[in-house]
Amino acid sequence: MYQFIDGGSVTSAQGFYATGIHCGIKKRKKDVALIYSPAPCSAAGTFTLNKVQAAPIQVSKALIAAGKAVHAVLVNSGNANACTGQQGYDDALASQVYCAGLLAVPVDSVLVSSTGVIGQLMPMDTFYSGIESAVKTLRPDGGLLAAQAIMTTDLKQKNFAVELKTESGTITIGGICKGSGMIMPNMATMLAFLTTDAGIEQTVLQKLLSEAVNASFNRISVDGDTSTNDMVTLMANNASGTTISEGTELYNDFLEALTAICKEMAKLIVVDGEGATKLISIAVHNAKTVSDADLIAKTIANSPLVKTAMHGCDANWGRILSAAGRSGVDFNPDKAKIYFDDVPVLLKDYEIVLDEEKALAVLSKDTVEISLHLEEGSSSTQWWTCDFSQDYIKINANYRT
Amino acid sequence: MYQFIDGGSVTSAQGFYATGIHCGIKKRKKDVALIYSPAPCSAAGTFTLNKVQAAPIQVSKALIAAGKAVHAVLVNSGNANACTGQQGYDDALASQVYCAGLLAVPVDSVLVSSTGVIGQLMPMDTFYSGIESAVKTLRPDGGLLAAQAIMTTDLKQKNFAVELKTESGTITIGGICKGSGMIMPNMATMLAFLTTDAGIEQTVLQKLLSEAVNASFNRISVDGDTSTNDMVTLMANNASGTTISEGTELYNDFLEALTAICKEMAKLIVVDGEGATKLISIAVHNAKTVSDADLIAKTIANSPLVKTAMHGCDANWGRILSAAGRSGVDFNPDKAKIYFDDVPVLLKDYEIVLDEEKALAVLSKDTVEISLHLEEGSSSTQWWTCDFSQDYIKINANYRT
Repeated sequence: MYQFIDGGSVTSAQGFYATGIHCGIKKRKKDVALIYSPAPCSAAGTFTLNKVQAAPIQVSKALIAAGKAVHAVLVNSGNANACTGQQGYDDALASQVYCAGLLAVPVDSVLVSSTGVIGQLMPMDTFYSGIESAVKTLRPDGGLLAAQAIMTTDLKQKNFAVELKTESGTITIGGICKGSGMIMPNMATMLAFLTTDAGIEQTVLQKLLSEAVNASFNRISVDGDTSTNDMVTLMANNASGTTISEGTELYNDFLEALTAICKEMAKLIVVDGEGATKLISIAVHNAKTVSDADLIAKTIANSPLVKTAMHGCDANWGRILSAAGRSGVDFNPDKAKIYFDDVPVLLKDYEIVLDEEKALAVLSKDTVEISLHLEEGSSSTQWWTCDFSQDYIKINANYRT
Repeated sequence: MYQFIDGGSVTSAQGFYATGIHCGIKKRKKDVALIYSPAPCSAAGTFTLNKVQAAPIQVSKALIAAGKAVHAVLVNSGNANACTGQQGYDDALASQVYCAGLLAVPVDSVLVSSTGVIGQLMPMDTFYSGIESAVKTLRPDGGLLAAQAIMTTDLKQKNFAVELKTESGTITIGGICKGSGMIMPNMATMLAFLTTDAGIEQTVLQKLLSEAVNASFNRISVDGDTSTNDMVTLMANNASGTTISEGTELYNDFLEALTAICKEMAKLIVVDGEGATKLISIAVHNAKTVSDADLIAKTIANSPLVKTAMHGCDANWGRILSAAGRSGVDFNPDKAKIYFDDVPVLLKDYEIVLDEEKALAVLSKDTVEISLHLEEGSSSTQWWTCDFSQDYIKINANYRT
């Protein structure tokens, strides 16, 4: 079984170095992070499905697809290098080349990632000086610095690690991430960078990461918008000497631990969503298929009416059922049951058992679970979202005014 | 060519009577509307696609599908008769039977429609007394009373009519509607009722209405949520003596006039959306197909980030392009161009020509057109939405608190 490590991050796993520094892409705050493993790593990644893809997404996606060994991830905040055309692409490559040169590793072993303002060219001289500082300040305990340097509108720094005891020793998985709340001119982005000292072959690593991301980052919603820069990467350097292959018990344990850390990261991103005051977990049970369950949960998670009702602690089961009804999934609403935590609200055949007082007690908490039981099959899912507050509108409307 | 009639409504066409009265489903405001034609009408309808369908939707949908002659539409506000199970269905039928009896018309010639609170049984004694009053107060100029009686959270009464001069005389099309803004416990609904004194065979009428609705009501979005009770109906009583058949010039003229009135109704619904301060028209040009154009326009129209940016008069073209990018449509963003009204903001190859001052002047108006040119083909569409203001959150979150 895995255990979370207090204050853990990307440098919790053996053999990883990291740093976060300020070079001037942003006015005052840290704006360049670097994660580095002297030993070559297998690396996996998942990337935004948005048709509008930032330059670093294009560069890193190709690198992961080629299955090459990776040594580092270079991340900047303050400029997304998105919607910047050919010059933006050339700049992303140039930063990769420059960083690889200073680290004395192959050019195509450095992943690049950006978050921040879109539609503006990267200030390359500033960035080069930042890359120099970053390479010079790499530390075996620099994970928290890196976590700070990737923040944009995040209020909280986001770093986690888990430890997994195995027969052949301890494996550690660590990660840092930043949130998906978006403000103008920052089209802020969901970024997560994970490291592990297990030894895992690239195709297996990709499978593990894809599965973990699917159960975590792919099931959160702050406002339904996805960014041009979203990416999640996982590097495995085998510093622990414990290798993981498919079809073993250890594979399952590792997947469980990786999924757990991804879920905690995802939930923290939701809680730190712009203007969010509570975490709303949406469980859909007994759907015909998982994809039915996901489509319904996603529609509920993205419904402004549900999100505003949750903000107002309003036990508005009608909005939940109606959102499910417009999801495109075929189900019989007469059989639906709705609970807030363990408080039943609606039973089948529209039997309304809502106790306003009990519901209010549940809805007033920081974390609420809405569960919808369809009685159509045996598939389930769980999603996470936050409420919609007036602050969300303020933050997103008034930045420039 | 058609012309709008000042103060026109469902009683502008010859041979239609209407009324709107208060019976007590709501505390003080009018809550029952009735539209009636002594002559039998052909009738067409379009209904919500939500899986959760209110009882009156089920009743009226079956009636339209059967192609029977229609004499009346009975509408109540204050109670949606949705999520009310078998009893709710029986109540909807009972109201239909009662109304038909008093009007001395066949039971299956009365359409029924409801909007208001969901999950509560209809107070039938109150409703019966309302139906009696309504039948007694039908007037040849009662369209505006009916328009008032179907309002829920609407701030503005919504009624229109157009006149179409033909060689064989004048045809009139009139309508009333109510908005799609939703507050708890009202799951308010988009309802529109149209009448015309043209003579049109049922299948042709349905075709005309479906086409007009597709270009108007189906292209608006207040918050992306659709209700359990949405419906649009059109009754044609041939009181003008002018009949319309497919394949004629008059058919096209009628469609144009019908579409025009539906668009004005749809736009007024958007402008009257909860917390809306401006009408945003979204035009997508040069897409490969109309369905591509619609999917992109819809995604932009539903993006909270675009809607909050518009509220803040923020020329945030990145959010528009990013919303298009996540719509699921395949296009090359490098070729995209974006305009606010006639002010270019982004040209191809990410040439940013945004003049902040000019953009602010456009965005500060009550009505703004965002146009996105894809250069992928020759298909276009136009959608309408409103901005997201803090008032939207206030209205939707704080009703009960």
